[in-house]
Amino acid sequence: MTAATRPSAVPVLHHPSAGETPLGTPRNIAASRHLWGHFTDQSGWAEDRLPTVVRAKGTYFWDSAGRRIFDGLSGLFTVQVGHGREELAQAAARQARTLSFFPVWGYAHEPAIDLAERLAQEAPGDLDHVFFTNSGSEAVETAIKLSRNYWALRGRPGKTKVLSRAGAYHGTTLGALALTRIASYREPFAPVAPGAVEVPTPNWYRSDPEYWDDEEAYGRHVADAVEEVILREGPDTVAALFVEPVQNSGGCFVAPPGYFRRLREIADAHDVLIVSDEVICAYGRTGGLFAAPDQGLAHPDIITSAKGLSSGYAPIGAVLVSDEVYEPFATGEHVFRHGYTFGGHPVSAAVALANLDVFEREGLVERVRTLGPAFRRTLDRLRDIPIVGDVRGSGYFYGIELTRDQATRERFTEEEADRIRAFLNPALYEDGLYVRADDRGDVVVQVAPPLVSGQAEFDIVEQALRDVFTRVQERI
Amino acid sequence: MTAATRPSAVPVLHHPSAGETPLGTPRNIAASRHLWGHFTDQSGWAEDRLPTVVRAKGTYFWDSAGRRIFDGLSGLFTVQVGHGREELAQAAARQARTLSFFPVWGYAHEPAIDLAERLAQEAPGDLDHVFFTNSGSEAVETAIKLSRNYWALRGRPGKTKVLSRAGAYHGTTLGALALTRIASYREPFAPVAPGAVEVPTPNWYRSDPEYWDDEEAYGRHVADAVEEVILREGPDTVAALFVEPVQNSGGCFVAPPGYFRRLREIADAHDVLIVSDEVICAYGRTGGLFAAPDQGLAHPDIITSAKGLSSGYAPIGAVLVSDEVYEPFATGEHVFRHGYTFGGHPVSAAVALANLDVFEREGLVERVRTLGPAFRRTLDRLRDIPIVGDVRGSGYFYGIELTRDQATRERFTEEEADRIRAFLNPALYEDGLYVRADDRGDVVVQVAPPLVSGQAEFDIVEQALRDVFTRVQERI
Repeated sequence: MTAATRPSAVPVLHHPSAGETPLGTPRNIAASRHLWGHFTDQSGWAEDRLPTVVRAKGTYFWDSAGRRIFDGLSGLFTVQVGHGREELAQAAARQARTLSFFPVWGYAHEPAIDLAERLAQEAPGDLDHVFFTNSGSEAVETAIKLSRNYWALRGRPGKTKVLSRAGAYHGTTLGALALTRIASYREPFAPVAPGAVEVPTPNWYRSDPEYWDDEEAYGRHVADAVEEVILREGPDTVAALFVEPVQNSGGCFVAPPGYFRRLREIADAHDVLIVSDEVICAYGRTGGLFAAPDQGLAHPDIITSAKGLSSGYAPIGAVLVSDEVYEPFATGEHVFRHGYTFGGHPVSAAVALANLDVFEREGLVERVRTLGPAFRRTLDRLRDIPIVGDVRGSGYFYGIELTRDQATRERFTEEEADRIRAFLNPALYEDGLYVRADDRGDVVVQVAPPLVSGQAEFDIVEQALRDVFTRVQERI
Repeated sequence: MTAATRPSAVPVLHHPSAGETPLGTPRNIAASRHLWGHFTDQSGWAEDRLPTVVRAKGTYFWDSAGRRIFDGLSGLFTVQVGHGREELAQAAARQARTLSFFPVWGYAHEPAIDLAERLAQEAPGDLDHVFFTNSGSEAVETAIKLSRNYWALRGRPGKTKVLSRAGAYHGTTLGALALTRIASYREPFAPVAPGAVEVPTPNWYRSDPEYWDDEEAYGRHVADAVEEVILREGPDTVAALFVEPVQNSGGCFVAPPGYFRRLREIADAHDVLIVSDEVICAYGRTGGLFAAPDQGLAHPDIITSAKGLSSGYAPIGAVLVSDEVYEPFATGEHVFRHGYTFGGHPVSAAVALANLDVFEREGLVERVRTLGPAFRRTLDRLRDIPIVGDVRGSGYFYGIELTRDQATRERFTEEEADRIRAFLNPALYEDGLYVRADDRGDVVVQVAPPLVSGQAEFDIVEQALRDVFTRVQERI
């Protein structure tokens, strides 16, 4: 982070010196020709703007240019226990030797049974039934299908609409995508599945100034707006409301006090299921093994999860379902006609069990609860930089929102925001920090370090952010 | 298979003697309480009708009752190289130690690059670009979204409809599910994604008797029916046609000679992409690493795959895309705004590479080509049982359709068909053979042994089928 190693403001992510560049190496050429990156500008491979990650250990990874980078995003909100855990590698190999694959289509195997039992034990309330998937998108699809099927079996087949919040990301398959309220992610692929309806999301920082001194009033206001949508659509048409305990997309929107309690009242009043989409928030990220209870959502009907369940060491997702929602399927009178070949994959399930063992052995959830406030305090120090407007989040999951003016909360122009975003990611990477400048709303940098992090790691994050934000400040 | 070990005709899958039963064991109780099986009657756990698989090796698996079962379905059309391969277990552990997870969202890693390159090299024609997913459903969703995005970027945004064939299964997420033409899989979850339109599927065995002596005329007839649908819907509204090289659901429908050539002509005439859904057929199953060329579909625009890519040792899918379809995204002018966190997972990709190494080292594709005809001849012996009506398939993927009358091809009544199906699966399992009586059309038993199988394994399959079909024959 000395001046000599600082790159120019031009958003070239890589290669401070030609000697280090893998440009033109066989792998780089192969990536350019054959690998289609996700949400990726494909010209980036050939122009060598996209790093190739070669190994990782603990809270760091190394790229093909030999750079060591602090993983401030846990891969993608995923690597809770840190990289390169020998016990997880061994769990995968051990299970692959014993039973590498069998479907749970009318058959069971021990890893799927054991993981289902363990998740049911850890889950809040009576979320006792576990349907496995391979991803968060598939988990959300499962919850949509299940909530419709449930209401039909309860004699209310008209309840098919699913609600989700403005700006939210719930996945990319055509059902989950309908719930993803980011127009540019949906429009190129229309028509997506019908029946998705948008409700407002709490964004206190950007709320009407009348609420700046009363977060609770703001929470009531935004929750009541959900009821207005239900009444407008007709409660007899609404199956479920999807919410993240802390909304990721747009930048770590934490629920105001009382907000989720009010949502639960509204949902109960109109017979609407609440799906807590914890693909990002569960498994310690926000300070609980599951996030809903901690964030004030005491009784979700369904929890969707993925990512941190295996700390990303193997693809797996899990949908947890309440006794009430499971009941019509319990006796065999009705079958939930849904499934995925790899769902509950024995190796993925074994890895998830080993991952939860690490959580338990190292007290990772307690660690986040204990050290979370210090992480917040460390990030709060950044408020001495004038463009730092808001620092918000929970546990080890924070967003730092930039603003033109701390007092008025004035937004950057769109042109400025684009310029800042284009600068932030590569500049932070050059400073040795991998995090993400969210490109789906205001300018928010999201940080989510592995749960094994402590004050030393918080400081690394804060220092890189300080350096780069200061440079943004100077250039505005 | 002696009379003493034969179970009664009652469809109880398990436990010929009380001494062997795990009924009431902790795992069985846990499964009953917490594990939601896919496409599964949940009462089966408590009533102990559902086996728990505990280990597997080569072409066999063992259940918790101590039974050894021949895996005649390769898990679920998945375990191509057989179970328990040490080299695949080691590949998983090695990669997990080096880099257990990183997303391919604007970053690359070596296993994803290497696997993309290898698939592109092996793929037919110019299918040079690889988008990774976690499952077959996600691969099909990707192909739907890509074909719509492609046509919009070619200036034809009205081309959004996707066609699939009667009875076909293409997945269970709400986009893929729209293509799945099995009403009972769609209806409980309506509304699915709109824009899916059904076309006929070739089922020569059940065709009008005028075609029984002229398969080629039948193929022309069924292909021309696809063109009628395109003309009815309007070619300017149709993006893509999804076809399996050999259609699984309904029972291994092989394309008549000339059928796919004619489909390609029709698709070209109306600017419709052809998506070859090879989730089941690829990776050697029907006799080629990819199935389309062998089955007469020389130039698909997109191939979707999953299952056999890793032999099921890790969840992964791959979508292969032609130069032409990739072109609008190559320069960075347009970004394909789609992705999955776990897509191209480094461990899954490393396992897939090790799996393809096994294919190469052991010549598995050539093995299927060489021994496939012997598998067919072995199954053809079953035609001496009067209820065996048709034996059809390709490579190591066959369906045996049962009929009331070999000459007239008379169907069973629905009540008879249900009774036979309820008998078949458990009776075959009791005889030591895991296969599947398809429940989505006529009575067809599907067999798909691991690709390491040879004549000894073909005989095991044939003998168990002979035994059970004979017992069905006696009871009809």
